[in-house]
Formats: sequence, structure tokens, C-alpha cells
Amino acid sequence: MSRLGGIEAGGTKFVLAVGTASGEILARHSLPTDRPEDTLPKVADWFDSQGPLAALGIASFGPVDLDPSSSRWGYITDTPKPGWSQCDLAGFFARRWGVPIGFDTDVNAAALAEATFAGLEAGTLAYVTVGTGIGGGLVINGQPVHGAAHPEMGHLYPRRPKEDLSFAGVCPYHGDCLEGLASGPAIRARWGMPLSDLPPDHEAHQVIAEYLAQLCHILFATNAVGTVVLGGGVMKTPGLLARVQDRAKALDAHYLPGRSRHVIRSPGLKEDAGAVGALLLGQRALARLTP
Amino acid sequence: MSRLGGIEAGGTKFVLAVGTASGEILARHSLPTDRPEDTLPKVADWFDSQGPLAALGIASFGPVDLDPSSSRWGYITDTPKPGWSQCDLAGFFARRWGVPIGFDTDVNAAALAEATFAGLEAGTLAYVTVGTGIGGGLVINGQPVHGAAHPEMGHLYPRRPKEDLSFAGVCPYHGDCLEGLASGPAIRARWGMPLSDLPPDHEAHQVIAEYLAQLCHILFATNAVGTVVLGGGVMKTPGLLARVQDRAKALDAHYLPGRSRHVIRSPGLKEDAGAVGALLLGQRALARLTP
Repeated sequence: MSRLGGIEAGGTKFVLAVGTASGEILARHSLPTDRPEDTLPKVADWFDSQGPLAALGIASFGPVDLDPSSSRWGYITDTPKPGWSQCDLAGFFARRWGVPIGFDTDVNAAALAEATFAGLEAGTLAYVTVGTGIGGGLVINGQPVHGAAHPEMGHLYPRRPKEDLSFAGVCPYHGDCLEGLASGPAIRARWGMPLSDLPPDHEAHQVIAEYLAQLCHILFATNAVGTVVLGGGVMKTPGLLARVQDRAKALDAHYLPGRSRHVIRSPGLKEDAGAVGALLLGQRALARLTP
Repeated sequence: MSRLGGIEAGGTKFVLAVGTASGEILARHSLPTDRPEDTLPKVADWFDSQGPLAALGIASFGPVDLDPSSSRWGYITDTPKPGWSQCDLAGFFARRWGVPIGFDTDVNAAALAEATFAGLEAGTLAYVTVGTGIGGGLVINGQPVHGAAHPEMGHLYPRRPKEDLSFAGVCPYHGDCLEGLASGPAIRARWGMPLSDLPPDHEAHQVIAEYLAQLCHILFATNAVGTVVLGGGVMKTPGLLARVQDRAKALDAHYLPGRSRHVIRSPGLKEDAGAVGALLLGQRALARLTP
């Protein structure tokens, strides 16, 4: 089986993996995300130390250019992260090694990995990460969804319950969009500490569950998604997943025709969803060249 | 080119068409939706009067069973419409003619027709009808989206603006979901007449535009949809489309990476999107049998 490289390029760290298309990770490494001119050569050096690769998959923080007809395919586009705007991530490695490169968002890759290895109920799956930001990826008919660009699920506007209208939210673009209300920084800005440090009967748990349940309900209603996987640091809060599940059921009110097949769950691949997704992106790039 | 039959099965009328896979309609007929035992034989008789068909496509009001492994594929499932619950729509015609049958929701079929013949920007398209109810269909990578069941876009909860919290909505399941707030019956219940009869400076126009713009923004953010087509009776209100476009742009706030490719438009196929979509469903069923 081909040796594949996978890069999960995150805003705070890069996770590197060598593995196979069956999702097996043979070696891994991680390093902090500094400026690209420091980080990318270190990434390449580590892979070189592991031996040759048949293909590389890159699962990147966004926004990214996924349009195969664009001259900037494989770039990170406009990001506030210093040095990374218009960074030719795929090109750097393509030039160095000349191997097929697969490229997608970190969350689309994680969705692909979860759909492939951790149970794909009813053909469609969304992977949502709730942490420093809120992002989501989507797999429909086995394919990560690209359209006008890629999903940016954190930036929709959940309904504010009447008893929770006062917090202005922390998103610099939208104020109280989902990310502005329910991300880790939003929780800290509002209650001064992480959700997991607040007592279980603190109102924060129900408020955050409400907003995340609305995203799940939206995904069920608009895409007929079967499975929503909720990952990321905030989701490690004990009891949160169950609260989201309960609240999503209440929002549905026994209505949606596919409701018996709806699943909201934690990542089956735990912390590895992104890295395994990156390996799969590498495999897909390889398959196009060596059918 | 094969002669195809298309049925757009709506809650108030059935539209029948004989045509081709290029979307040409050669003959058409419509009849009111009575009970199935009255309506379906009349439908069959009209097609018989037009000569033999190579395949039939059915674009039906929902909810419907689209699961090919289900014993009730091709059924309308649970509907309050008298006589139509658990109606074996596809089976009736399959037994009568023995031709390949394509089957999907009316809005998925309309989305397919618009994506095929009226401009598919950026690979993904949603078709939303705003009338007696609010429903939406979705085409991604050329395929109508099926998942846990099918999209039911009218039943998500848009944010209620602070100045518009009082109306309780008319949806029997959810109260003030999108359909409960912005469908034709919701508008009548609230202001006593259709939107198009209210003066252009009446607040209703902006209220309805706000809720529909939220759906468009949700589709852009969750699916990276390129195009949202807005059809149905309410959308014939002069000025409404432009208000929705403006408001959706304001909700995005120059954020989403694909925003330059976002399009919100009227159906390019006008009233024919559903019927042409039904012909395409017939063609797809035929192609599976005669590749």
C-alpha cells in the first residue's frame, strides 16, 4: 500500500502524519505554526526524514482556494494570520517533491475521514469543530462539498432566545453569529473562563447547547444531513453533547422526514480525524494519476 | 431523442408534460389534485392519449421516500393531505406502463432543471419555493441531494429581529419557523392580504425579505452554495427579490470566501422548472437502464 503524507495545517499547530489509505498512521509529528518561511521547511524536513511519499494531502485552515481552474488553487487566501495571506501551501510541497497533492479545508478533510472510517449514516455527513473558531465541513455522496468556495458554518446567525439577547458576540465581522456566540473565545469573553470550568448548573451550558443545536437542525433541514460530528475543544465539556442532542430533537419537534436517521456524535477518530482526512486527500490525488 | 413523460405533482394541481431530455416540452396538461384514486387514472389517461413514453419522471410534493433500498421508495409518506398518505405514486405508473421511473421532490427536480438549463454558477444550486409553504431542493456536483431523507428548508428557525418578536407564526409544528413566518398563509394571517397587495413602503416587505435573506445566507455559509433560485407565488411580489439580495449581502458583511460568486435569482425556466425537472428525472431513470 502506498506511503502517503498528511498535513493538518492549523492556526496554532501543524500535525504531520505518514500513513496509508486505510487510515493507519505509521509516524506522526507536530510543530507550532510560525510564519510560513519558518514552518514549511521544517515540515518538509520531517517528511524527508521519514522516506519518500507517493502523494501528499493537505487539510488546511481557511479560507483556501479550492477551485481547480484557479491559478491560486492550493493557496491560503485572505487570513489575518501574519504571513499566511496568499501563501501557496500546495505549491511549496509540489515544487519540492513533484508528487500528487490533495488539498481541502481541515474540516472537509475531517468530514471525509469520519464518513470513511467512523460511520456514515444516510449518505451525508457534516463535521463541525467548536474551538477557537467554529468551522464545518460537509461530505455528500462521498465527496467533500466545494461550491462558491467552501462551507464556513460558524458565520450564520442562530436565533437569539428572548432571555439571551444582551451579549453582543465577539466575531469581528458579524458580532453575534454562531462563532461570535459559541466559540471558545466567545465563552471566555462572556463568562471569564472555559465552559468546562463553569459548574454544570450554570446557564452557559444550556445557552451554548442551544446555539450548537440550531446549527445541527439547520444542517438536517437544509442538506438532509444524516450525521453531524461535533469536535473541537469546547465539545470536550462534559454533558455538552447530550444537551445538544436533546435540544436538536426539541427543535425538530417530530417533523423532519429523516429524523429517525439523524445522528449527532463525537468524532469516532478522536483527535485523528484531520490527519487521517489529510491522508485520504493524498490518496484521492494519487488515484487520479494512477487509476 | 426519447419521448419522456414528466409529472409535477403539487398539492393543488398536477402538471403533466411530454418532452425530451433537452428540456423541450412537446405537450402539456394540468389538472387539480383530488384524491389519488380520482387523480392518478386521469393522469395516466392523458399520457396514454399522447402516445408511448420511454420513461417517466415524477417530481412530487413531500415528504417522499427516496431511499432506493426501501420497500416504500416512490411513496408519498406522511402528509395531512386527505388520501395521499402512504400513496405509492411511482408504483402506480410503474405497474401501468413498465417503463423506468425517476422520482424526487418537486424542489429537487426544479433545482436539477435550473442547474442544467438556466446557469449553474460555482457547481452548487438551491431552488427555494415561497408560496403556500416554503420548500427547497439542492443540487451538488450535478446530483439532487438525498441524505437522511430530503431537504425541508422551510422548517429552520431564522433569527427574529428585536423589532419583530411578537407574531407567533402559523406552522403547526414549529410556530415561527421560516414557513410559519414568511409563507403566503403566514403573510395573510399576519397582515390580512398577500404581500403583493400591501403598499411598497409597508414594513411587511422588509420583514419577509429579512427572513428569506437569512435562508440564502445559511445556504451560502453551510453548503457553499453558488446560486439560490427563489420561485413561488410570494416571490412574484415586485421588488422582493432585490430586497432579499440586498439584505443577504448585508448579512454576509464581506466575509464569505465565495461571496463574489453568490447569485440569488428568479427561476430562469419561469413556471416550467418543475415540469422540466420531472422530464430530467425520467431521463436519468432511462440512462441507468440504457447506458
